[in-house]
Amino acid sequence: MAQIISFGEVLMRLSTPGFSRFEQARQLNVTYAGGEANVSAALAYWGHDTAHVTRFPDSPIGRAASQYLATHGVDTSHIVYGGPRMAVYFLETGAALRGSQIVYDRANSSLATIEPEEINWDEILKDAKWFHWAGITPALSQGAADTLLNGIKTARKFGLTVSGDIFYRANLWKYGKKPSDILPELTAGTDIVIANKENILEIFGIEGNDFVEASVNLQKAYPQVSKVVDTKRTSISASHNLLRALLWNGKELLETADIEINPIVDRVGGGDAFIAGLIHGLISFKDDQKALEFGVAASALKHTIEGDALISTEAEVEAIRQGETSGRIKR
Amino acid sequence: MAQIISFGEVLMRLSTPGFSRFEQARQLNVTYAGGEANVSAALAYWGHDTAHVTRFPDSPIGRAASQYLATHGVDTSHIVYGGPRMAVYFLETGAALRGSQIVYDRANSSLATIEPEEINWDEILKDAKWFHWAGITPALSQGAADTLLNGIKTARKFGLTVSGDIFYRANLWKYGKKPSDILPELTAGTDIVIANKENILEIFGIEGNDFVEASVNLQKAYPQVSKVVDTKRTSISASHNLLRALLWNGKELLETADIEINPIVDRVGGGDAFIAGLIHGLISFKDDQKALEFGVAASALKHTIEGDALISTEAEVEAIRQGETSGRIKR
Amino acid sequence: MAQIISFGEVLMRLSTPGFSRFEQARQLNVTYAGGEANVSAALAYWGHDTAHVTRFPDSPIGRAASQYLATHGVDTSHIVYGGPRMAVYFLETGAALRGSQIVYDRANSSLATIEPEEINWDEILKDAKWFHWAGITPALSQGAADTLLNGIKTARKFGLTVSGDIFYRANLWKYGKKPSDILPELTAGTDIVIANKENILEIFGIEGNDFVEASVNLQKAYPQVSKVVDTKRTSISASHNLLRALLWNGKELLETADIEINPIVDRVGGGDAFIAGLIHGLISFKDDQKALEFGVAASALKHTIEGDALISTEAEVEAIRQGETSGRIKR
Amino acid sequence: MAQIISFGEVLMRLSTPGFSRFEQARQLNVTYAGGEANVSAALAYWGHDTAHVTRFPDSPIGRAASQYLATHGVDTSHIVYGGPRMAVYFLETGAALRGSQIVYDRANSSLATIEPEEINWDEILKDAKWFHWAGITPALSQGAADTLLNGIKTARKFGLTVSGDIFYRANLWKYGKKPSDILPELTAGTDIVIANKENILEIFGIEGNDFVEASVNLQKAYPQVSKVVDTKRTSISASHNLLRALLWNGKELLETADIEINPIVDRVGGGDAFIAGLIHGLISFKDDQKALEFGVAASALKHTIEGDALISTEAEVEAIRQGETSGRIKR
Amino acid sequence: MAQIISFGEVLMRLSTPGFSRFEQARQLNVTYAGGEANVSAALAYWGHDTAHVTRFPDSPIGRAASQYLATHGVDTSHIVYGGPRMAVYFLETGAALRGSQIVYDRANSSLATIEPEEINWDEILKDAKWFHWAGITPALSQGAADTLLNGIKTARKFGLTVSGDIFYRANLWKYGKKPSDILPELTAGTDIVIANKENILEIFGIEGNDFVEASVNLQKAYPQVSKVVDTKRTSISASHNLLRALLWNGKELLETADIEINPIVDRVGGGDAFIAGLIHGLISFKDDQKALEFGVAASALKHTIEGDALISTEAEVEAIRQGETSGRIKR
Amino acid sequence: MAQIISFGEVLMRLSTPGFSRFEQARQLNVTYAGGEANVSAALAYWGHDTAHVTRFPDSPIGRAASQYLATHGVDTSHIVYGGPRMAVYFLETGAALRGSQIVYDRANSSLATIEPEEINWDEILKDAKWFHWAGITPALSQGAADTLLNGIKTARKFGLTVSGDIFYRANLWKYGKKPSDILPELTAGTDIVIANKENILEIFGIEGNDFVEASVNLQKAYPQVSKVVDTKRTSISASHNLLRALLWNGKELLETADIEINPIVDRVGGGDAFIAGLIHGLISFKDDQKALEFGVAASALKHTIEGDALISTEAEVEAIRQGETSGRIKR
Ligand SMILES: [Ca+2]
Ligand SMILES: [Ca+2]
Ligand SMILES: [Ca+2]
Ligand SMILES: [Ca+2]
Ligand SMILES: [Ca+2]
Ligand SMILES: [Ca+2]
Ligand SMILES: [Ca+2]
Ligand SMILES: [Ca+2]
Ligand SMILES: [Ca+2]
Ligand SMILES: [Ca+2]
Ligand SMILES: [Ca+2]
Ligand SMILES: [Ca+2]
Ligand code: NI
Ligand code: NI
Ligand code: NI
Ligand code: NI
Ligand code: NI
Ligand code: NI
Ligand code: NI
Ligand code: NI
Ligand code: NI
Ligand code: NI
Ligand code: NI
Ligand code: NI
Ligand code: NI
Ligand code: NI
Ligand code: NI
Ligand code: NI
Ligand code: NI
Ligand code: NI
Repeated sequence: MAQIISFGEVLMRLSTPGFSRFEQARQLNVTYAGGEANVSAALAYWGHDTAHVTRFPDSPIGRAASQYLATHGVDTSHIVYGGPRMAVYFLETGAALRGSQIVYDRANSSLATIEPEEINWDEILKDAKWFHWAGITPALSQGAADTLLNGIKTARKFGLTVSGDIFYRANLWKYGKKPSDILPELTAGTDIVIANKENILEIFGIEGNDFVEASVNLQKAYPQVSKVVDTKRTSISASHNLLRALLWNGKELLETADIEINPIVDRVGGGDAFIAGLIHGLISFKDDQKALEFGVAASALKHTIEGDALISTEAEVEAIRQGETSGRIKR
Repeated sequence: MAQIISFGEVLMRLSTPGFSRFEQARQLNVTYAGGEANVSAALAYWGHDTAHVTRFPDSPIGRAASQYLATHGVDTSHIVYGGPRMAVYFLETGAALRGSQIVYDRANSSLATIEPEEINWDEILKDAKWFHWAGITPALSQGAADTLLNGIKTARKFGLTVSGDIFYRANLWKYGKKPSDILPELTAGTDIVIANKENILEIFGIEGNDFVEASVNLQKAYPQVSKVVDTKRTSISASHNLLRALLWNGKELLETADIEINPIVDRVGGGDAFIAGLIHGLISFKDDQKALEFGVAASALKHTIEGDALISTEAEVEAIRQGETSGRIKR
Repeated sequence: MAQIISFGEVLMRLSTPGFSRFEQARQLNVTYAGGEANVSAALAYWGHDTAHVTRFPDSPIGRAASQYLATHGVDTSHIVYGGPRMAVYFLETGAALRGSQIVYDRANSSLATIEPEEINWDEILKDAKWFHWAGITPALSQGAADTLLNGIKTARKFGLTVSGDIFYRANLWKYGKKPSDILPELTAGTDIVIANKENILEIFGIEGNDFVEASVNLQKAYPQVSKVVDTKRTSISASHNLLRALLWNGKELLETADIEINPIVDRVGGGDAFIAGLIHGLISFKDDQKALEFGVAASALKHTIEGDALISTEAEVEAIRQGETSGRIKR
Repeated sequence: MAQIISFGEVLMRLSTPGFSRFEQARQLNVTYAGGEANVSAALAYWGHDTAHVTRFPDSPIGRAASQYLATHGVDTSHIVYGGPRMAVYFLETGAALRGSQIVYDRANSSLATIEPEEINWDEILKDAKWFHWAGITPALSQGAADTLLNGIKTARKFGLTVSGDIFYRANLWKYGKKPSDILPELTAGTDIVIANKENILEIFGIEGNDFVEASVNLQKAYPQVSKVVDTKRTSISASHNLLRALLWNGKELLETADIEINPIVDRVGGGDAFIAGLIHGLISFKDDQKALEFGVAASALKHTIEGDALISTEAEVEAIRQGETSGRIKR
Repeated sequence: MAQIISFGEVLMRLSTPGFSRFEQARQLNVTYAGGEANVSAALAYWGHDTAHVTRFPDSPIGRAASQYLATHGVDTSHIVYGGPRMAVYFLETGAALRGSQIVYDRANSSLATIEPEEINWDEILKDAKWFHWAGITPALSQGAADTLLNGIKTARKFGLTVSGDIFYRANLWKYGKKPSDILPELTAGTDIVIANKENILEIFGIEGNDFVEASVNLQKAYPQVSKVVDTKRTSISASHNLLRALLWNGKELLETADIEINPIVDRVGGGDAFIAGLIHGLISFKDDQKALEFGVAASALKHTIEGDALISTEAEVEAIRQGETSGRIKR
Repeated sequence: MAQIISFGEVLMRLSTPGFSRFEQARQLNVTYAGGEANVSAALAYWGHDTAHVTRFPDSPIGRAASQYLATHGVDTSHIVYGGPRMAVYFLETGAALRGSQIVYDRANSSLATIEPEEINWDEILKDAKWFHWAGITPALSQGAADTLLNGIKTARKFGLTVSGDIFYRANLWKYGKKPSDILPELTAGTDIVIANKENILEIFGIEGNDFVEASVNLQKAYPQVSKVVDTKRTSISASHNLLRALLWNGKELLETADIEINPIVDRVGGGDAFIAGLIHGLISFKDDQKALEFGVAASALKHTIEGDALISTEAEVEAIRQGETSGRIKR
């Protein structure tokens, strides 16, 4: 019955407390998170009915992960269980001139070993409105790529809006396929593309001297694409960033002002919070500029919260969107 | 035997660790604090003999609260026990563009249900020098308002200096009285009034285009008032503020420079620390300008300390007052 | 769509870490729990679709409580929001010869101030199978009692099985009614009654020299009642208890052996885990003896887990029921 | 104005969390405690006006120690400041067959370097009723021994009851004096002596085949001594002990039954809690047997509480004295 | 230059704090441990020069693991770096009737993907005296099995004593070989075999009605084997165990008395501590009975210490061996 | 066999968690650190074979200190055991305008009571390349000063490079000698001197209007000195500093740009990290300017890490040296 469905890997996140280095930590904070699930979590806090689809090992650890997602209000009833292991990532939080550090241990995870027939997309998507995916999923394995492609095709069949975070890191593709082998077909079924100019040029072999030219050419090649969106981060230090975003809607380039974040509490998941805010804005406001600003405000707010997920009310994000960033006490 | 007596509600303070949101916290830090008690606590650390008067439930929680106040060196022997419950406030500490958030749960507390005859003001105040109150107390209930009025009248009888923090939030007054019904009589017995222009105009129906005019007119209406004091906060973000203060002493307007605080560790209790610093300065320095500066220095220092109470030595505050804010290590 | 529905107050539980006394604690562990919700939580971990109905303040604290219940897999979509405050209880865990200590602060809670029309029982119960309530709810207020009575009547209308934990402490009834004014009507609609002989005699004015006689007479007076159940605890110390249970099913008295628990990690919620186990057994096994044993095993296991809720698999409880209590490592 | 005055060293107690070994601990729990101060702390929780006399360094650490004692309700106004350093002890808590381990670092402490004229015993003791000392103090230094002797003489002058815990470990005496050089004169001014048979024989050169004979002979040599008291501990393991006590009051030997403690949370300070309970009993009950039992009950309860100090109500101890050790929950 | 060399996998150990279940933990304690490394760690605390050989990923996590082993005083200079990932195990500590639970995630670890030529056994073993291995290593992969076999052969070449912990769980062997394919050749080069009767019968196809018969027959088939050793655990509950051991030295069966442990702090690594104690005893005492008792004492002591490794002095273990298990405080 | 040898006191460091004041802390973080050991620790993380020489008490605390140093990869085999106590320092970390505060308790430590013959410098230094000392050691006692002088002379004999951190605080010298009595002889054997102009003028009675003049004159008086190095810190607040350094190499004055650190996590040990970086640079780069920059980068990075020791890779420091201070996430 959920309206917004996300699909992707959820990892156990093991982060050192405070600013400890891996060598120092005798405790690690544990949560469970993943880019697409983070989008569903943020949207659930704003009142949307969201469900996340993934695959966990059938073990106490898999059950704990599922319980954790439920805490955010995300429907976990379509998660399937099986496969060898939980994907893990280790996070060491930086400060000032020392950047944060992430070590992934996700090979051979339960999602990477999924078989497409394990997910009944017809049942999951038939009454839904929105489907969200990201470019990391097809990098995991052929099974994950095929499962995702089925999802996108089913979403198209039922008329959902599809958003895709074209996240491109060539060194993640280790099972024999290249991004340009698979991402084009996925993008062909996608309405809202989150990508920067460099992604567009490299993945799709498209030309363009700037973000607008690349977006225009992307739309020509993939007519389902209605909007192309990108975020820009100015990194003064690990503790001090500026954020803004761009959106090409086929007619005009919309931009936001920079929002300053100082100090940053936890910047992981900031991009996912942006996408959640954008989706919320597009659904609720019918105003691309306002949706884009809501996305940037959501992303900025995420940077002040420990963990991957944006835990907030819609009113909190809207206040930031309207420029209320003075941080006064609310009583 | 204490020289400085404060009266007011003390709440259990339950704050999320670090920058956690309420939804995330599986532990809460617990202390016990209240605006007037915070003044007595800060003064005790500087060597004053202070006592706080309040009412706690006769329970392990009430006893724990009293033990906690004693840790600050505040005399707790005049606290009375009875009534239904400990007042509570929940605190979530913000960072950067996310403000802190406070949720109060103080209705029907042991202090709100006090009967005036429970406090023997004659005994408490007869050898004291200073009495401090705040505008939140008469908002709690008729019993609390009456008990406070008795205290102020007794303080006048014994010739104490009386300071009042005219803290005005109309929505706190729920038992049928309005601030303008009660605060005027309390103010009539008060020497040092902490209030801003807006408070003065709204509560007392006094006119004035600026702080000085409002203060002059307040003194005309309430001749016991010898000084009117206000603080000004510039909030760049939840982590970065500037502080300064103003004092009208009947003859001239004194002002301080801004002190910058970045990052803020905990800004709750900053106003109380200012009042404590001001009282210490007025008692010890006989110099309004220096007292005002000592108050702002105390308030700034409080922002770097977790918890409502300013834990410091007089020398630490005095160094800041003299401009030593470079934060070098002391060995 | 949930099959098992519970109704009752959920309190913020603030417990001192380890074996700290209230005077020592500078942190408190926070969870959210209540007798009836604990039943739904335990059942959800065993795969039942459960929903809890209650009323929370419309505040960050109320939202955090709801999120917390969702972590257990309990459906929170029928919780209503409003009213003044979250009920709270403070817990200090004892050890050896020092008993645990609980301080309640639940007066004037959001559930105590509920109006019966706030809950749409028809919608909640129409497709369900089981309804669970406890005797603490009608003690809170007339509104809570009326809301519960509506629930029981609706459950009867739709043919649900109703279980009631006749929890009797006279000093909790403060709004003018006595247990004997209200509990009889609630019991009249109940199938499974959890109560000891003393409760039965005092509340219903029923006679009986032992548990069986009292149960037989209760059934005569309340023909809907099909089973009467009681637990017996032998308390050697705060750390070392024995547990067993009795069930009168209208034909015979069933009993279990004692299970020893040493050391106890947290005994709060042990009775609720018993009821959850009993309900699970009655639904799944169609065997009163086995259901009773499953209840005692569930209760014993709960004593080894921090927090009010039993977090377990069905297989874990079943192994204990079958006598596997040697605590060997599972790999 | 305090009625009960204790004198002795207070040490910073640094204990490993849980059952960690020193090599494992990356955090240490910190409190401030000492045998004589523990007696005053326990008595203050039962409503006695107690003051502790000691010497702390004039540093943030000395101030923190003093604040900590105040938390227990002990009057700290007679503490003097000066000297080189805070005494420290490190504690590793054992379990089962592994005993706890204490490492002292107390040489050259602020109390060891005290000069007798720093303490104005006349002012401190003139309105008091009871003075308590222990045999560790004269082992520290000649200055500490002389200061204590002055205290005992002043107590005698003003007619106080004097209790002395004759704590004898020869290897602590390092400044040239032996226990038998100094303890006799201190004991000559003492009413209540806590000592075992071995202490009596070795320190005073007194003969006796058992505790009663030794006590009788001690009284002959030191006629001020009215009672001799001893505790007996059966140590089954670090987690499981039995406690009882003996008292010779000049006429008869009184004994208590064993109290079992299992598991032990923290046994440090158990002897001090016994003395506090005994003093409370002698003052309040005028019944040696009941006082002795109250002491054993207080000591047993202490074993369930983290830290050196017994934090309890009189009612809690009295319930244990009357045999209520089943550890049921108090609500 | 180390005298005692161990070889085997080291895993990141992630354990829930206190007795938390996996679903509850928001922090996990992290250490690094493995059966063979635990032996070297315990021996290093007793003054032996020990080195552990393993393979870690060349990442911050691999470096942290190596630093951690160094803390125990184990030489880490022969560890090699490479391969895909750190092996992990998750631990939930049980209490009373709830057993502890371990979830392994060790497939495809850096050690499982080792190539035999990565370890220069000649250099490592040429000046050493003892080599220790366990049966889990050949279960990991052919590469691990081959590397181990090289180590045993090299140890024989240089005349080291070889001990092997014949740890048999059939379901761990997943790369195509069975225990009976590989363990015989490894055992042929081993002097001290730790195994129970069932292991001997199943792995080697040897007959025997009891431990002695099986041991005698094992020695016949594998003449290098000089001693066969086994431990026996009586599990009363997860918190209460008894331990003893048996040793067949070719001539007689030696046995120890039971040692009781109650409560158990952490039983993981108890078997490794036994082996360490046995090795220490065989090297230092030249007395099989005393060595066996030292092993059981070491194992019992380990059960009182958090973490896999026994952190102790030789004197502490020896005192337990001599029966001093009363747990008195050491000062 | 270590190549780089440091000598000096290691203290137990007890720091308040977060920004807590001493009065607030109920836990203290514990590590073991000292200026010279910090240099060896940082160098070990970059792959150098380093050993630290010091003296610890022969106690569990001394053993824990030694284990802790081993965690950094520092060889601890030349540490000697004996003497009365572990030196301690207490640290309270400041923020914004509140500076950090250090309280030392190091008198009469095991190192202060060392006898020169306890250290066999010939064995320790005969195969080494570098010896590092600091000016705090000769301030401790005659024994410590003599032991250090022996070390420097032995280092000269074997042709090591000697670096000395001329750390001058007159009030630390309490055993009868003045800095100018002892530091000149130590400096005469030193190649690399870390000192500022004021140190040079006061200790050596040397003249000079600026750092270069003072350095030139120092080299004239002490011809072994080849380089003089100094760091400059701009302290905007306790949380915000700028760092740079100067080096006179006998021919030219080298300088670095400022590196900004905001916020500072822990600035203690920042000077030691600079020296480690400088030593690493001088050994590895043969380029004074690059070595100086590497030192400043290492020092800046240390400010972002909790604890005295710089835990880092060479690549991390080198990236900062090259200007990469934007703090982006490393994956
Ligand atoms: Ca972190
Ligand atoms: Ca906070
Ligand atoms: Ca004072
Ligand atoms: Ca607890
Ligand atoms: Ca479910
Ligand atoms: Ca402990
Ligand atoms: Ca008192
Ligand atoms: Ca554990
Ligand atoms: Ca060694
Ligand atoms: Ca700190
Ligand atoms: Ca190295
Ligand atoms: Ca330093
Ligand atoms: Ni969550
Ligand atoms: Ni900025
Ligand atoms: Ni979350
Ligand atoms: Ni305090
Ligand atoms: Ni600024
Ligand atoms: Ni405080
Ligand atoms: Ni939860
Ligand atoms: Ni739960
Ligand atoms: Ni038992
Ligand atoms: Ni205390
Ligand atoms: Ni027992
Ligand atoms: Ni205490
Ligand atoms: Ni270790
Ligand atoms: Ni036993
Ligand atoms: Ni270890
Ligand atoms: Ni370190
Ligand atoms: Ni370290
Ligand atoms: Ni700056």
